[in-house]
Amino acid sequence: MEAPEAPLRTVERPVPSLQDGEALLSCIYSEVCGTDVHLWHGALAGVPYPLIPGHVAVGTVEQVKGEVHSLQGRPVKEGDLVTFHDVDKTCGRCWTCLVAQQPTRCPHRKVYGITYSSEEGLLGGWAEKILLTQTVPILHLPDELDPEPFIAAGCGGPTGLHAVLRGRVSLGDKVYVQGIGPVGIAACAFAKLCGAEKVIASGSPAARLKAARDMGADETLDIRQHSVEERIQMIMDKTRGFGVDVIIEACGNPLAVKEGVSCLRDGGRYVLVGHYTDAGSVDINPHLDITKKHAEILGCWGTEPKHVWQAMDWIARTRDRLPWQKCISGFYPLEEAEQALRDVEALRVIKAVIAPSATANP
Amino acid sequence: MEAPEAPLRTVERPVPSLQDGEALLSCIYSEVCGTDVHLWHGALAGVPYPLIPGHVAVGTVEQVKGEVHSLQGRPVKEGDLVTFHDVDKTCGRCWTCLVAQQPTRCPHRKVYGITYSSEEGLLGGWAEKILLTQTVPILHLPDELDPEPFIAAGCGGPTGLHAVLRGRVSLGDKVYVQGIGPVGIAACAFAKLCGAEKVIASGSPAARLKAARDMGADETLDIRQHSVEERIQMIMDKTRGFGVDVIIEACGNPLAVKEGVSCLRDGGRYVLVGHYTDAGSVDINPHLDITKKHAEILGCWGTEPKHVWQAMDWIARTRDRLPWQKCISGFYPLEEAEQALRDVEALRVIKAVIAPSATANP
Amino acid sequence: MEAPEAPLRTVERPVPSLQDGEALLSCIYSEVCGTDVHLWHGALAGVPYPLIPGHVAVGTVEQVKGEVHSLQGRPVKEGDLVTFHDVDKTCGRCWTCLVAQQPTRCPHRKVYGITYSSEEGLLGGWAEKILLTQTVPILHLPDELDPEPFIAAGCGGPTGLHAVLRGRVSLGDKVYVQGIGPVGIAACAFAKLCGAEKVIASGSPAARLKAARDMGADETLDIRQHSVEERIQMIMDKTRGFGVDVIIEACGNPLAVKEGVSCLRDGGRYVLVGHYTDAGSVDINPHLDITKKHAEILGCWGTEPKHVWQAMDWIARTRDRLPWQKCISGFYPLEEAEQALRDVEALRVIKAVIAPSATANP
Amino acid sequence: MEAPEAPLRTVERPVPSLQDGEALLSCIYSEVCGTDVHLWHGALAGVPYPLIPGHVAVGTVEQVKGEVHSLQGRPVKEGDLVTFHDVDKTCGRCWTCLVAQQPTRCPHRKVYGITYSSEEGLLGGWAEKILLTQTVPILHLPDELDPEPFIAAGCGGPTGLHAVLRGRVSLGDKVYVQGIGPVGIAACAFAKLCGAEKVIASGSPAARLKAARDMGADETLDIRQHSVEERIQMIMDKTRGFGVDVIIEACGNPLAVKEGVSCLRDGGRYVLVGHYTDAGSVDINPHLDITKKHAEILGCWGTEPKHVWQAMDWIARTRDRLPWQKCISGFYPLEEAEQALRDVEALRVIKAVIAPSATANP
Repeated sequence: MEAPEAPLRTVERPVPSLQDGEALLSCIYSEVCGTDVHLWHGALAGVPYPLIPGHVAVGTVEQVKGEVHSLQGRPVKEGDLVTFHDVDKTCGRCWTCLVAQQPTRCPHRKVYGITYSSEEGLLGGWAEKILLTQTVPILHLPDELDPEPFIAAGCGGPTGLHAVLRGRVSLGDKVYVQGIGPVGIAACAFAKLCGAEKVIASGSPAARLKAARDMGADETLDIRQHSVEERIQMIMDKTRGFGVDVIIEACGNPLAVKEGVSCLRDGGRYVLVGHYTDAGSVDINPHLDITKKHAEILGCWGTEPKHVWQAMDWIARTRDRLPWQKCISGFYPLEEAEQALRDVEALRVIKAVIAPSATANP
Repeated sequence: MEAPEAPLRTVERPVPSLQDGEALLSCIYSEVCGTDVHLWHGALAGVPYPLIPGHVAVGTVEQVKGEVHSLQGRPVKEGDLVTFHDVDKTCGRCWTCLVAQQPTRCPHRKVYGITYSSEEGLLGGWAEKILLTQTVPILHLPDELDPEPFIAAGCGGPTGLHAVLRGRVSLGDKVYVQGIGPVGIAACAFAKLCGAEKVIASGSPAARLKAARDMGADETLDIRQHSVEERIQMIMDKTRGFGVDVIIEACGNPLAVKEGVSCLRDGGRYVLVGHYTDAGSVDINPHLDITKKHAEILGCWGTEPKHVWQAMDWIARTRDRLPWQKCISGFYPLEEAEQALRDVEALRVIKAVIAPSATANP
Repeated sequence: MEAPEAPLRTVERPVPSLQDGEALLSCIYSEVCGTDVHLWHGALAGVPYPLIPGHVAVGTVEQVKGEVHSLQGRPVKEGDLVTFHDVDKTCGRCWTCLVAQQPTRCPHRKVYGITYSSEEGLLGGWAEKILLTQTVPILHLPDELDPEPFIAAGCGGPTGLHAVLRGRVSLGDKVYVQGIGPVGIAACAFAKLCGAEKVIASGSPAARLKAARDMGADETLDIRQHSVEERIQMIMDKTRGFGVDVIIEACGNPLAVKEGVSCLRDGGRYVLVGHYTDAGSVDINPHLDITKKHAEILGCWGTEPKHVWQAMDWIARTRDRLPWQKCISGFYPLEEAEQALRDVEALRVIKAVIAPSATANP
Repeated sequence: MEAPEAPLRTVERPVPSLQDGEALLSCIYSEVCGTDVHLWHGALAGVPYPLIPGHVAVGTVEQVKGEVHSLQGRPVKEGDLVTFHDVDKTCGRCWTCLVAQQPTRCPHRKVYGITYSSEEGLLGGWAEKILLTQTVPILHLPDELDPEPFIAAGCGGPTGLHAVLRGRVSLGDKVYVQGIGPVGIAACAFAKLCGAEKVIASGSPAARLKAARDMGADETLDIRQHSVEERIQMIMDKTRGFGVDVIIEACGNPLAVKEGVSCLRDGGRYVLVGHYTDAGSVDINPHLDITKKHAEILGCWGTEPKHVWQAMDWIARTRDRLPWQKCISGFYPLEEAEQALRDVEALRVIKAVIAPSATANP
């Protein structure tokens, strides 16, 4: 991706010679995330184009220099099936990390596929080889977990898990998930696993609504069939007029926030995890929407390594009960990455996956 | 107060004959709160005019029927100096109280001086006698506490305390208090008592700014001298560019919310306690103001009896160190209640106090 | 139950005439709890013998005087299927309730079947009729819930739920439940519903171990087959040597506490919910068992109405997935209550149920 | 310190040549901690004698190789006044750090002056020069903070702060501090700064009792004058029979734990921070001491860098109000280190400080 809106190109690069503590990954799959679409449209500030997109990937280790360990404490060896936390260089040593204790806001962190230029190396997932630096957290996939369900969850898995934990979803909660892209769908699954009594999800189109139900949503609302007012009314009807305990916004539409505050119960928790890019503003009434409701509105930014680790463990554990893998609508070879972006943008797919070694879309 | 905007009138009423478990209070002082101004202008929904304003009062017990105990567990006897939690009939038995655990949002609660009509009895503070029902929580004033510092804090004391606890102000936090009416001033005091490293307060006029400093604010910003942009810049400068840990909005102006989110640190807590009436909306950008900041925005509604109890204990304990009493700018006899409302509205006073037995403003 | 160790007798009492706000329950089932065994052996202090045992019961409303509402806000009418929170008169108005916020330790509370003498009325469950006072919290059973699965959980349901919430069991936790009486079995079920990754339970005999597995335990340890040292080793082996995240002690044996601290992970949470009576002391090493482990050891006493409400809702919701009802090993008519006590004490049954209208043990 | 109980010797070592990212500190002061006494008596397991004691120190930077930054983000330069977190190599990358989130229990960490052998380098404070590794967290002292008040708090400052935060001491709490060595005295100061209503401390001798009062304790109990039973009674009398909200055990005596559980209020929090070495066991009654009290017993192990940072900031901020420096009873040259150990053990001093450049005890 050379510049915003420019056509994507595949480029040959030399295989890097490793420094001590580095590893080279042969990429099996990397995901196409909604953020990649925003990236392509230049909607993120401070991006050092040109870059290699792809912040989540899974592959086999091709080469290791010196001693490298995964977070699980196992040595990383050639042939191992691993992934990595897309966020490199969280310092763990600054005021933000140590005192404010907001590691996802550490000013030093760098993100594979987003804040690394391709000049800096093979630091993005849409590539045959990926360089794992000395500082990037590496994770072994559990033995029983295949790459497909893992990449199906993609960054939506840890992000959805973070949102569910941030909202303190617990036994008996009624939860409303706004938006059923990969983050929303994962939030449905994790909310249910946390003991939510009822998970209601809204979005479109039909294929995503079905996927949300398959993954844990008890009920879904099609936003093309029901107006905002109808949706609010339906939520209130399903909650004896009280509103839901927890809402997870995972759609990135500012208007959803107005809808959300209208169907949150007094003292409820509202997690905004879908606004990774600036999609504009929304009118909020501090009296009615926040103070009088004694509401908690909780921004949720990024992920910590623990979210990747735990999400991965849960995907492994539920791989027989939950159809994670069905969220993949298509595998694309590197040459078709631009088509993958277009398909994601048009909501033609739930999850598009780049398979660098593939030669055609199955 | 017969109707919104109507002139206030003093009316003779018969002394009620008590039911078992009731008490009659001879009112020494009742406060004039900003809410009373809103009440007079008809800005609160569902108010059963005519009513006797005054939700906080202190007095001596004149008569008791049967056994009555204060929250402290002491029998309430004639001559005792007591106050009461203005919120009557919080049921403690409904879904909101028991499961959602949001007692300040219990649908059954009634508020002295606000949601009781004068047809229902002497259930407001601006009166010579006040009826204490079987269900209203009564509190004895600590022996060492005079009525003046207690009424000086008024409902701002427990409300400010609730906001500080809601914001989890703790050792070392930098706190910004927006608005320095009685709630904001109390928030300055309590934030400091909780170990805040630095409390910055903004508002006007000069007398209130001085009061805020006397009560605990380390620094104050005069909103008539500094624009919103300047204030944000000043806050950022005082926090090495990070923003403050906790903000307490206590001014009721929707624009303050926009200012607040701009100077909150990543992962900070923002308590909205000033929006007791609907003062309109404000444009919020979910990406910049909430998600990207990993912010917590916390509505704060009403008080629980514990807040009255604890605030009262703290006023007693700090009565020699903090000039609570100086916040009272004037005592008004019942006949001058309307003038008191006008003085509060014009910010001519910090706290106006109704003294039913007074005959002239000292 | 006339006195400790005395034979149980059935006694005829007049049907009470109701006061306003009271109701009379025709008892369908009341449970036999381990506490009842302790009660019979005089192991609880301050019990006002003679009394009618039975702190949990379910029945149909036979008579209502005046207006009575359940916690759900529905009017209580003749023929309704209801239960009640066994704890009456939690005041909600004292320092313990309001400031310390420990309602289960309110000094004013009275417990049906335990701290009410039979002189005070029909205030225990092992009776044909039960008086519901003006102050006891009443709950309607959900429409889809039969009395059998409800009484099968008995007081173990809300108690086990309280312990799981107290231990903050959450997504991915490994949980060890010590003791598989009704509290332990319910804790297995609720821990799993909260997203525990793995629940290990220990106890005996085989029937209880099987019940624990049927209700949610992933693995069980038979304490008659494995020594304490073996159990500790097995737990450590199952947790890569780290120990479990949460332990719930539900067996009442002081030695279990020593076992527990030995297999808790650093920073783990250990809930002691099984020690409702004084079973003696145990040697704890503050350095090794608490400080060095950075452990949390959490006492868990009694239940709040919310625990009954939520446990009941979850029993209703999982009635098709979890065999709550199979925990009932036998129904006993009133005349056989002493036999029920003996069967519970000898662990011959998991849960014994008193069925006042039954005439023989099915 | 060559071996347990062996006489201390001063040894000449070559000045190390620095690796990239290392710094050399010229030590001004290092503290003598109770742990050093235990170390000398061989009471800690797994200590790699011989070693250079001293886990907290302050000095000026003598030499820097490459780029080194303090936690505050400032470059570390020659002549800077700095300290360091005594805990090196907390990995931030293992299950304990990332998932269990218990960084003070990270299995990879190494402690200056305790778990580093003197064979490994100048990694202890009782030395003229100290090597700061690439991984040890370095902190600049605030400009207004002199080395004396900083070293006066020593490791007691961050440890006491950790205990106060672990006990969630907050506005209005009554707090009992058991033990008034440096940790207990710091806990008195920080509890008061957090808004504790009343801090009671127990211990001996008189000089320490006076220091505790000077630093924040409202009342002190001399353990040589009052028996355990008397102390419990006195605490109960001071809390209307309820017991205290929070207890901080900072004395290392197992019997103190029994005393503590006897005067903790129902639902109170009890932090065990004094048991850094194994001083044996104590009989605890799970029913009376934990379950029935609904108590929280919280182990508290080690410190995180944030505790050092925040404690240091608070010492700087309160340096004019609190006599931190008076806790230093004596400065000892290196040659008198053994005498310092003996004075600490005999409670002849509150805090002994090693001053490597000193030539005689002032």
